[in-house]
Amino acid sequence: MTTVPIDRTTGLGHRLEQNPLITARDVKPSLPQLEVVSVFNAATAQLNGETLLLLRIAERPRSDIDPPPGAMTLDLDGPHPVLRPLPKGYTKHDVIGMCFFEEDGDRPRVVVAYIPKDLPGLDLRDPRSIRYRNSTGVLGVTNEGYTDYLAQMSHLRLARSRDGIKFTVDETPAIAPHNDIEEYGVEDPRITLIDGTFYITYVSVSRWGITTSLATTRDFKSYERRGVILLPDHKDVVIFPERVNGKYVALTRPMPQSFSRIFGIWIAFSDDLTQWGGHETLCLPRWDHWDELRTGGSAVPFRTREGWLELYHGVNRNHRYAMGAVLLDADDPRKVLARSPAPILAPGTAYERLGLFNDTIFSCGVVPLDADRIRMYYGAADSCIAAADFSVREIIASLEPWPR
Amino acid sequence: MTTVPIDRTTGLGHRLEQNPLITARDVKPSLPQLEVVSVFNAATAQLNGETLLLLRIAERPRSDIDPPPGAMTLDLDGPHPVLRPLPKGYTKHDVIGMCFFEEDGDRPRVVVAYIPKDLPGLDLRDPRSIRYRNSTGVLGVTNEGYTDYLAQMSHLRLARSRDGIKFTVDETPAIAPHNDIEEYGVEDPRITLIDGTFYITYVSVSRWGITTSLATTRDFKSYERRGVILLPDHKDVVIFPERVNGKYVALTRPMPQSFSRIFGIWIAFSDDLTQWGGHETLCLPRWDHWDELRTGGSAVPFRTREGWLELYHGVNRNHRYAMGAVLLDADDPRKVLARSPAPILAPGTAYERLGLFNDTIFSCGVVPLDADRIRMYYGAADSCIAAADFSVREIIASLEPWPR
Repeated sequence: MTTVPIDRTTGLGHRLEQNPLITARDVKPSLPQLEVVSVFNAATAQLNGETLLLLRIAERPRSDIDPPPGAMTLDLDGPHPVLRPLPKGYTKHDVIGMCFFEEDGDRPRVVVAYIPKDLPGLDLRDPRSIRYRNSTGVLGVTNEGYTDYLAQMSHLRLARSRDGIKFTVDETPAIAPHNDIEEYGVEDPRITLIDGTFYITYVSVSRWGITTSLATTRDFKSYERRGVILLPDHKDVVIFPERVNGKYVALTRPMPQSFSRIFGIWIAFSDDLTQWGGHETLCLPRWDHWDELRTGGSAVPFRTREGWLELYHGVNRNHRYAMGAVLLDADDPRKVLARSPAPILAPGTAYERLGLFNDTIFSCGVVPLDADRIRMYYGAADSCIAAADFSVREIIASLEPWPR
Repeated sequence: MTTVPIDRTTGLGHRLEQNPLITARDVKPSLPQLEVVSVFNAATAQLNGETLLLLRIAERPRSDIDPPPGAMTLDLDGPHPVLRPLPKGYTKHDVIGMCFFEEDGDRPRVVVAYIPKDLPGLDLRDPRSIRYRNSTGVLGVTNEGYTDYLAQMSHLRLARSRDGIKFTVDETPAIAPHNDIEEYGVEDPRITLIDGTFYITYVSVSRWGITTSLATTRDFKSYERRGVILLPDHKDVVIFPERVNGKYVALTRPMPQSFSRIFGIWIAFSDDLTQWGGHETLCLPRWDHWDELRTGGSAVPFRTREGWLELYHGVNRNHRYAMGAVLLDADDPRKVLARSPAPILAPGTAYERLGLFNDTIFSCGVVPLDADRIRMYYGAADSCIAAADFSVREIIASLEPWPR
């Protein structure tokens, strides 16, 4: 394997000149009282000559209108939040909207609530979350002082394209929260095609944490829920497209908060795609590299002559999300052969550098273009969808042997 | 089900007058340079007419002698700790000892190191851990400012008894750290007998977090390692003694750190005991109850006429660990029928109230005494082994229907 020098600023990818391909303006809200904040982190598939993207759509209550008559607020001060009428007089400038899914017996629904911004104990510094410190100290016992809620709720929506560039976005969700494990939304899908069935891993978010669930479809019209496959906290689960040595394989990414708190890629094995075991560490953060803080599986791995190629995301000390590659042994994917010494694509353009979360390139899938080239779709700055084309040969030539 | 009033201070259990049954003084260190701090949290089994306890033994470098010539220290200030010679002149009063397992190629060994107590950034307030804030800020990026090490390293050791009261403790470990996933020790076992094989779940602790591993034995002489079955952070995994509706069943206890950070009992299913899925929440903390802060599986569940009875531990806002019971549907253990309104055993005696971690009763197993009575072995104050006898009929009569 020879190392070709790569530009450490922009990487090996050729961004499409049409980028960004899909923005929030292209997406219809799922409910009239909501607005779309972001469209990002899309899984990829190909079916009947079309490129399919399963988009993550983040929505929040409309911020351009005052809370309507009868609007509700959430009393966050007890051990469990309680819905109450919002006192009169609050305008759109005085509140932050939040929404969540509630099973509520036979009447599943999205609840919209407005939190007064002057509520003592509210922390809105991270635009993605609503953090609340309970004033009575009740939650301080159970939650180290804080409870977090999401400022946006996500669902998954299908977009279709003939050319892989111009996409038509469905008007209604493909996969939306459907039970209490998804009360804060569903996020970051990946799609793996195995024997004619598309296996979709996605993140289910609730008060119980960040779990990974599985759904299946054969036609992207109806979906079967297969339940929680990995316990909280857990995201970035990517299933390989075929069995290796008789077992299904997945990249996983636990989020331990003990000892050194290392968020990195592990590998797992399964006989049926719903029960997983045989867990081992695989591709962990490397200090003083572009992936020093966190690593996580991103695209579905694919076979190359040299082994399994996985495009993964890495985070550095400046919280920059960039994409790189890891090469795994063809017959034993527990063995890492080589990793990217620098990102194959790092944030550089305006749409990658500024958004809901700045300096972020985060892919959930690629599609093949020809025998050598692939197109990587990615969420840019947690705000919009973009794409970049790569030569697989160039990516592999750019890797350095690892462990050294 | 009728509710019998139970004493909210002491519970339903009858403590053995011989308590504590095993203390640190009864256990020989596994290496001459170590001392035994605690013996607690023992799994239970019965074989050839003997009661077996698989004890958790916590050890640390001897604190009664000065660091020997050639003693090492750990330089904690880089991204990874580095072993260096301890400068001369440090006495036993000036250092805190720590030990960990190192694979180190073909030369696996326990490394002993001494950390000077006057090291800036050291936090020794919790007697169970050595917390270090990196002075250069390097680890602050990856670890929210702190890295934790254990002040004790645990292994598992067998004890045998003819009468269930007087135990003989083996002189060498049964299961000790054997790879990097166990570098900080192995802890808190549970033993489930299925078809002549004893399945041992236990906690493997390392820089990568708290994972649950599986080992098997048929004779408690040789053990087979079956690897990591649940990803970090995860402990308190208890396997049911038979298949239910064709599936193996386990209680699990993930430790999410997102949103409401609820540490509670979930349920999982398996076809082969190494791959687990079908995860659902089961028996979560209940605010304003004895188990308001955390719940976790403790003893191996057993069948009763009324359903599966699980003795679990609950933690309240004062960080008191107590034992209670939950009754699960016989045919569908995802259904909770009833739970303890108050502990069946709560810390009351001196040996339960004062120790390495105060106010703690933590069981990892029971043994049957006759058709109605069981003996619950438990770790008391994270320091010693005690036992209490219960009538199963009384426990079940004391439960209240749940959810209400």
